[in-house]
Amino acid sequence: MNAPNEPYRPLLTQAARPSTFAVQAIDENGAVRETPIAGEHPLTLYVDSQEVVTLMTLGAAPEALAIGYLRNQRLLNCLEDIVAVQVDWEVDAVAVTTRNGLEDLAQRMQKRTQTTGCGQGTVFGDLMAEIDSIVLPQNATLHRTTLYALLESVRVHETIYKQAGAVHGCALATNEAGRSQILMFVEDVGRHNAVDAIAGQMWLDRIDGGDKVFYTTGRLTSEMVIKAAQMGIPFLVSRSGLTQMGHSIAEQVGITMIGRATNKHYLLFTGAERFRADA
Amino acid sequence: MNAPNEPYRPLLTQAARPSTFAVQAIDENGAVRETPIAGEHPLTLYVDSQEVVTLMTLGAAPEALAIGYLRNQRLLNCLEDIVAVQVDWEVDAVAVTTRNGLEDLAQRMQKRTQTTGCGQGTVFGDLMAEIDSIVLPQNATLHRTTLYALLESVRVHETIYKQAGAVHGCALATNEAGRSQILMFVEDVGRHNAVDAIAGQMWLDRIDGGDKVFYTTGRLTSEMVIKAAQMGIPFLVSRSGLTQMGHSIAEQVGITMIGRATNKHYLLFTGAERFRADA
Repeated sequence: MNAPNEPYRPLLTQAARPSTFAVQAIDENGAVRETPIAGEHPLTLYVDSQEVVTLMTLGAAPEALAIGYLRNQRLLNCLEDIVAVQVDWEVDAVAVTTRNGLEDLAQRMQKRTQTTGCGQGTVFGDLMAEIDSIVLPQNATLHRTTLYALLESVRVHETIYKQAGAVHGCALATNEAGRSQILMFVEDVGRHNAVDAIAGQMWLDRIDGGDKVFYTTGRLTSEMVIKAAQMGIPFLVSRSGLTQMGHSIAEQVGITMIGRATNKHYLLFTGAERFRADA
Repeated sequence: MNAPNEPYRPLLTQAARPSTFAVQAIDENGAVRETPIAGEHPLTLYVDSQEVVTLMTLGAAPEALAIGYLRNQRLLNCLEDIVAVQVDWEVDAVAVTTRNGLEDLAQRMQKRTQTTGCGQGTVFGDLMAEIDSIVLPQNATLHRTTLYALLESVRVHETIYKQAGAVHGCALATNEAGRSQILMFVEDVGRHNAVDAIAGQMWLDRIDGGDKVFYTTGRLTSEMVIKAAQMGIPFLVSRSGLTQMGHSIAEQVGITMIGRATNKHYLLFTGAERFRADA
């Protein structure tokens, strides 16, 4: 139950699964090596007892993932619509109970796009239509020193990737003068799960995207750019490259997109007017 | 029209799209750099005028992708069921005409799983059930020298990845004494598109998987292992890591799975009985 003066929070389980498991492998020298590998679990999402989708996930943040999926698919409009999010790994399911139900779930589920990225389909046509209505803060700026601070924060962050590989990571970070603090870091076997889990946690923690930077280890495809824009984050940074459609959507929505960012290297692709390269 | 003694081949367009496009980016020194980026295009698949799915793809092998998607989703059982595959980028669509229609498309489309990997959902429950019926050749062996030859073939292969990044590659290669020749190499912004396109081309070219090796730059998640097994390929090699479910399905289906394979390094995870490490 929520205290009177605290912001609303749905009932949540806390059912994170272990992220890595050890298996034995034989290396090129014939030596048996105990090797950590990343978890991967099916998680079927039910909304008010109706099956919506099965996500294959690392399971590190299943409640936030479920909430963020519903947010990013535009199936729910605000956190207050959610009464409870209950994960039960015995049956690989997450049950979301809503206050008023989902109006047009059947209709929305009919037309799905299997997207480029890892993990999830999206009601792509709807999202593209929505892009035009997104307004990112024009006055936000990102200084190069802040970018470098973010890349350093990411570099030293303890990750499942360093242990086991086979996951993508996403981070939400602050954008301060010459500093960038990682507020959330989520890894998943599907990179769209990672971004969705961050979107869910941002709802739960009432975090606005406008003064933040979004970092991902993954490629900047159309869907990644759309999701960052939906979260209202003006800066999108990736260690990897980008696609043509990711680039053109970034231009359309006016996001500042930086690729190939590692150590002191980067390529600034779009939204240069918000970037400050001064020393 | 097919000549009387030639194997059957459906009518096909040849509508590959350019794989890379140049955009301008500003690097850390303030220099403007013309940078190649990978294409990404929606491609909506219609079977007998019924919409099935929209795939986000590089567009390098759209006909093989459509055929392989239908094959790997078990929506069609043999190439002879397909009359024509016609890609029209004016409307971002591929139209597949079948001989007898798809029996249970509506039913199959109801239950989709958004999978871990890049790109596509799968009727996951069905596939898992089918796994038990797959028998991979028990007598096939892979010698370490052949593995090294494959990794060298991959290393020197000209790729879109080297130019533009943001794509995953899959290769089908021969398994000969100390030699491995790449028969097909497909890259895509979604790695499941790449594996599906190879499955489609294997059907078109009547290529059996039993004496081949499948290589991917991507992670070995559950779906990748299932698809390799479906194609009847006993050896699955990846430059990347693997997930727990990928590992357990590989054990179940008896595939020989090798991860972290690059240069002279590798980790042999499952199916060691088929691998010959002798010098």
